[in-house]
Parts: sequence; structure tokens; C-alpha cells
Amino acid sequence: MEKEKETKTLEEEQQVVNPWEVSAKGTGKIDYDKLIDQFGCQRLDQSFVDRVFRLTSRSPHIFLRRNVFFAHRDFNEILDAYERGEKFYLYTGRGPSSEALHLGHLIPFMFTKYLQEAFKVPLVIQLTDDEKCMWKDLTVEESKRLARENAKDIIACGFDISRTFIFSDFDYVGGAFYENMVRVAKCVTYNKAVGIFGFKGEDHIGKISFPPIQAVPSFPSSFPHLFSGIDKLRCLIPCAIDQDPYFRMTRDVAPRLGYNKPALIESIFFPALQGEKGKMCAGDPSSAIYVTDSQKDIKDKVNKYAFSGGQDSVENHRKYGANLEVDIPFKYLSFFLEDDEELEHIRKEYGSGRMLTGEIKKRLIDVLTELVERHRTARAAVTDEMVDAFMAVRPLPNMFN
Amino acid sequence: MEKEKETKTLEEEQQVVNPWEVSAKGTGKIDYDKLIDQFGCQRLDQSFVDRVFRLTSRSPHIFLRRNVFFAHRDFNEILDAYERGEKFYLYTGRGPSSEALHLGHLIPFMFTKYLQEAFKVPLVIQLTDDEKCMWKDLTVEESKRLARENAKDIIACGFDISRTFIFSDFDYVGGAFYENMVRVAKCVTYNKAVGIFGFKGEDHIGKISFPPIQAVPSFPSSFPHLFSGIDKLRCLIPCAIDQDPYFRMTRDVAPRLGYNKPALIESIFFPALQGEKGKMCAGDPSSAIYVTDSQKDIKDKVNKYAFSGGQDSVENHRKYGANLEVDIPFKYLSFFLEDDEELEHIRKEYGSGRMLTGEIKKRLIDVLTELVERHRTARAAVTDEMVDAFMAVRPLPNMFN
Repeated sequence: MEKEKETKTLEEEQQVVNPWEVSAKGTGKIDYDKLIDQFGCQRLDQSFVDRVFRLTSRSPHIFLRRNVFFAHRDFNEILDAYERGEKFYLYTGRGPSSEALHLGHLIPFMFTKYLQEAFKVPLVIQLTDDEKCMWKDLTVEESKRLARENAKDIIACGFDISRTFIFSDFDYVGGAFYENMVRVAKCVTYNKAVGIFGFKGEDHIGKISFPPIQAVPSFPSSFPHLFSGIDKLRCLIPCAIDQDPYFRMTRDVAPRLGYNKPALIESIFFPALQGEKGKMCAGDPSSAIYVTDSQKDIKDKVNKYAFSGGQDSVENHRKYGANLEVDIPFKYLSFFLEDDEELEHIRKEYGSGRMLTGEIKKRLIDVLTELVERHRTARAAVTDEMVDAFMAVRPLPNMFN
Repeated sequence: MEKEKETKTLEEEQQVVNPWEVSAKGTGKIDYDKLIDQFGCQRLDQSFVDRVFRLTSRSPHIFLRRNVFFAHRDFNEILDAYERGEKFYLYTGRGPSSEALHLGHLIPFMFTKYLQEAFKVPLVIQLTDDEKCMWKDLTVEESKRLARENAKDIIACGFDISRTFIFSDFDYVGGAFYENMVRVAKCVTYNKAVGIFGFKGEDHIGKISFPPIQAVPSFPSSFPHLFSGIDKLRCLIPCAIDQDPYFRMTRDVAPRLGYNKPALIESIFFPALQGEKGKMCAGDPSSAIYVTDSQKDIKDKVNKYAFSGGQDSVENHRKYGANLEVDIPFKYLSFFLEDDEELEHIRKEYGSGRMLTGEIKKRLIDVLTELVERHRTARAAVTDEMVDAFMAVRPLPNMFN
């Protein structure tokens, strides 16, 4: 089943979603149901949310309750195994292409932190500085510097150092990790890679070499200092759904190498301020709220750029209500406003026109300012020594406690 | 100039020479003059032999005198620099695809040992166990084992441990070496790689990822424990000419990365016992003399398989003489019989029919038996500790003395 999906050309489907491009023809809006069908993954329905609640005795994360993480592959198997008393490990990552992260970048890390706490499992975080060096016009040195800067933002999300290993590819590629890269590369033809990633003849061979590098953290043997002797430990990957092609490839290859297929739990994209047309663009500062933005930046950006679903006059707004399907302030609140009741209240009042856009934007500015301030304070406390400590190649003695 | 040559399809030229295929249509014999033209390298003429003699105050190696190393790229620049008092380093390697080496495998190492001694320069030897794992049906573990076994044969050639670093890719890829791999990969498009190496869509991406791995030992910064601070140190690569495509690519990329182009000194192929139709095949034991062959093996193989240019009857032989152009015993003697006068004597006597094939074969058996016995004795003295010592990542304190 999975293999069939892979060979389908995404262009034919009118929307292109891969690690480097997210675009939809026609409406410009990603059709996530269609994407699930295209990719061959499963929808994460309410039964999963309930089950996670039951298994962890912890309120499910807002991103789980609100369907931000909306799709999965074999997450049920992870939960089955966990219920039997087996552990797993988490793997996520970031391509360090810019100095400052925006809110969309934080989403997988905020969610992964919750999973780590809820399930009490180890976590590996890959910083693909090599990828960014190859894709962007960045030197090796600049990519490595950005990786360390981004590591500080990641650490600021509150990961438990006794269960977390952060590594950059430039630092860590070699040894058992490299051996697995070779094993994976042997299993993927160029034609197959073109089918999955859409490579072109004018792409450089660095790009074509990269997919195994993102694949192998899915295999415990890539981390002998962590998982020596537990080669069958399952891996769960929280990520945005644009990363799915890497892991479709990985899952295809895993059984041929004697490894478990990694499981995935996948998020929708965090929309740009200007509206829901795929991912935000790190190169356009007005399209996103950055973790470095001041209170004034946040206020200005929300007021000036956040696409509103409100009507063009107060009269019409009172009459027809806001179009919540396209309203960015409401969407952002649904990602970050913790209080379910308040969000429901806003949905009704704003959707029916009793609340005005200005009120919603004000509430959003407050929520984002608090979030960004909290992050800024946490990041300021992250020292270079802490980065070194998280990135040290070391055992994690309390991994499963 | 060089770039133009690269884009020419080798098939059109009726002979295919690349790291994985050596074949010539028609006669079956490689036309080396045409190859020099195809590849865009230069012939190594007598003036070089004389110059090496003058610069090193040492009799030029038999492989230099006899045109076994027959082509070069920028070897003149290496000698110019050496004459000005500048040093360089040597880089050669081996793909460890089989347990036992044959005589053809020894040629670059015997010659490299001479260059190391004559010029008193450091040497890096790459064992591409990753390449062989990817090209052949070998596991990672088996490839690594073969690399160590082959290292023993290489050490047995007599390299100076105080000037020689041997490494296997599976052990060594990472750090500065990996950074250079990424830098090179960024500069080579898939289309370009297809032009140079003839990759096909059904080739796996491991093959497409490999060329930068063989390229980067050409750059001093890939070995920070050896060449830290001497980024401009020139590199000279002794190899068989089938490896030229890797280094055409490397030379094309080097200036864009701020590195010197490596220089090359390139050999013809050592012919199979059955006749000169390209390289010997490691998979066919009757096609080659192995360093593990007994005296009896050598005798039987030479007598049974070595293609003779002698005539079909003694009468005709006395009348027409041997055809030295195709006679394998004579060719082998021209590789390994040190005494120039004796070889000249054989050329005359055998070529005119006064000597018979049996006499030549007997002389060859003696020469090869002595060579193989000497190698066997040397190899038996190579301990695992010596392999570890040659492969230790360490400075070479007396590199340039």
C-alpha cells in the first residue's frame, strides 16, 4: 500500500508537499485530507487522544486536542507496545537555516517536549546543518554556527537533559551513524529518490546524498552511546507533514536492514500571517512572528499583516460574522490559546459577528507576547556550557526512568 | 580544456574506461594514446624520468623507466614546486573488494613507496570499504574486515610508518573530512556526475554519493591531524588511469573551494594472464597471479594461462620470432624484471625467434616467485598492532624529513 503511494507524482494531485516546497494550486490552501490520501498515512482521530490521556494520566497536549498533530503512521503500534510495558525513543530535528526561529518552528519541539515528559522516554534531536549548507548558500562554518544558535532555542523549550541528545550532522556523522547511511543509500535507487523527492538532473549530488542522513536517526544502532544492545527499540518521530517523504523512504528500507519502521505523528503547517498558503517563509520577516520579536513587533505584525476573516464593515460583520476558515488571528489562537472554553467562546462570538476583529487581534497579541516573552527568558538562560552538555556524545543514564 | 573533455561520452570513443569498467571494442586492446586524448591528461615523457632522477638523486623506478606510469596531470608543477624547496603529499588508495591482492593491485603501492622514499613526503592511503560495501554485495562488517586484511598487504610493501597514514572510510568519515565531502557535493550536479561516471537511474544513491568521498583526500584540510595550517600543500596522486574520472571531477571543483588541484601520475593496466583486454578480474583466479599463490600455483598459471606471442611451431618461431606486442610473459617481465639489459636481451632474442616461449616463461616464473615470496614474508611479519599503528589518527612528526 505504502509503496504504491510513493510512486504517485505529487504534481498530478495539484498540491506539492515535500521538505522544500509546500504549495497548492487553485485555492492555495492545503487539503490535508487529500494529503493523507496522497501520502498513505492515517488520520489521528479522537480515539488516539483518549488513549494517550488514559496511558499517560496527563491532559493531552493542546496540539493533540486541537488536531495540530493530525496524522500518523503506526502510532497505534507505539501505544500498543507502551501499554505492554515496552519503551520507545523520540526523534525530531531542525534544519538550521536562520538565526531566529518563528512560531512554526517551535511547534514540533513544544509537542516533543510534552511527549518526552508524558511517556518518559529518551529523545534525539538532529540539526541538519549539512543539509542547510547544501541547500542554501551557506558556508560550512555559518551552518554550524546557526545549528548552535538554534540548539539554544530548542533547549529553551525545556527538554530534560538527562533524556535528550542534540547533535549536528557536521559534528556527529561518522562511525555507526555513517555505516547506517551507507546501508540505507544502498537500498534507494536514483529513480526511486526522484519519485519521492522530485530531484532534477541539475540538482547537485549533495542533495541526492542527503535523504539517508535524515533517515538513520530512526534506527537505534545509529546511536551506540545511547542504545547499544537495544536495536529493536521503536522510534516515534513528531514532525510537520512535509517531512513525510523522508520517512516513507525510511519505512520502506527499514525491514530490509532488519530494523523496525519508525512511527510518525505529523502536524499541519502553521500558517503565515498573510493567510493559509502553506508554510511560513523564513526569508520574509513580515510573514511570521519570530521568537526574537519585541512586544511592539508582535503588535504591529498582528495588526498590520494578520489576514482577517472579518467582514469589510462593522455592519456586515455584525450581520454575517467572521469567516473562521480563513481568519489568521483565530487560527493562531487555536494553536496557542490553552483555554478550550475561551476558544469556544471566541469561535461562537466572533463567528457570529458579536466580537470584532480588533478584539480577537488584541487577545492574540497578549497570548503571543506572553509566549514569546517566556521563550526569550528561557533562551537567555541557556549558556554555551548547556549547549555543550546537551550535545555531548554520552550515555543518558536515566533514559527510561 | 579539461572541462570539454569531461562532457564527451566515453562510449562514443569505442573504449570505456572508468572506475568500474575497462573495455575496448574492436581489438579489445586499450589504446592509451587515445585515452590520454579522451581524458585530457598529458603523456609522461622521458624528460620527466630524467628530471625525477636529477631531483631525487636516485635511479628512477622501473615503473617510471618502463612507462608503466605513462600519463600525468600537473606532475610538472609538483616537480617545479619541489625544486623550489616546497613539499607535497601523496595520496593513493584501494577498494578492498577481495581478501587476496593480485600483482596488478600491488603496482600503485610499489610505485608510491618509491615516491615516498625518493621525495621524503607524507602519504595518505584511503581504503574505500564504504565504496565496496555499496558496489558489491558485501556487508559493512565484511567490507571493514577486508579493509584491514588489505592494509596488511599494503603495509607489507614497505611504507614508512613515520610518514604514512592509512585509513578506512568507515572508520574515518566525519569531522573535517565530512565537511569537505559536503563542500564537494555542492559543486557537482547529477547531470555532471552522469557525464563523468555514467550513472544510470537504476543506480542506488550510495553510488551517486560516493565521488566526493574519493575526492576529498586530495585536500590537506581533510586531515587536520596531519596538515593543520598547511592548506596549500600540494597533493600528488599515483593511481591506475581508470581512477582519472574521480580526479577530473576533483580538479574541476578544487579552485572553487580555494584548494589546489591535485596532480596525478597514472599507470596503464596490468594485463590479465589471458591477454591484454583491460584490467584483471579479481573474481577469476585463473586470470591473475595473487600474492597468496604458491610457487606451484605461479608455475601452473604461467605455463597454462599466460597468453604467448610465440609461433605455433618451433620452425615458424625460429623463422618469424615472437609477437612481443601480445606476449604476456614478456609484458609481465617488462613490469617486474629489474635488469634493463637482460630485458633488452630477451626482447631481441625472443623477438627474433632465437629464444623459445618455454625459456621466457621459466624466467618469468622465477621472477614472480621471488616477488611473491618476498611479499609473503613481509606480510607475515605485519601484526594487528602494526595495522592499528598505521591507521591511528595521529600526527606524523617526521613527515617532511
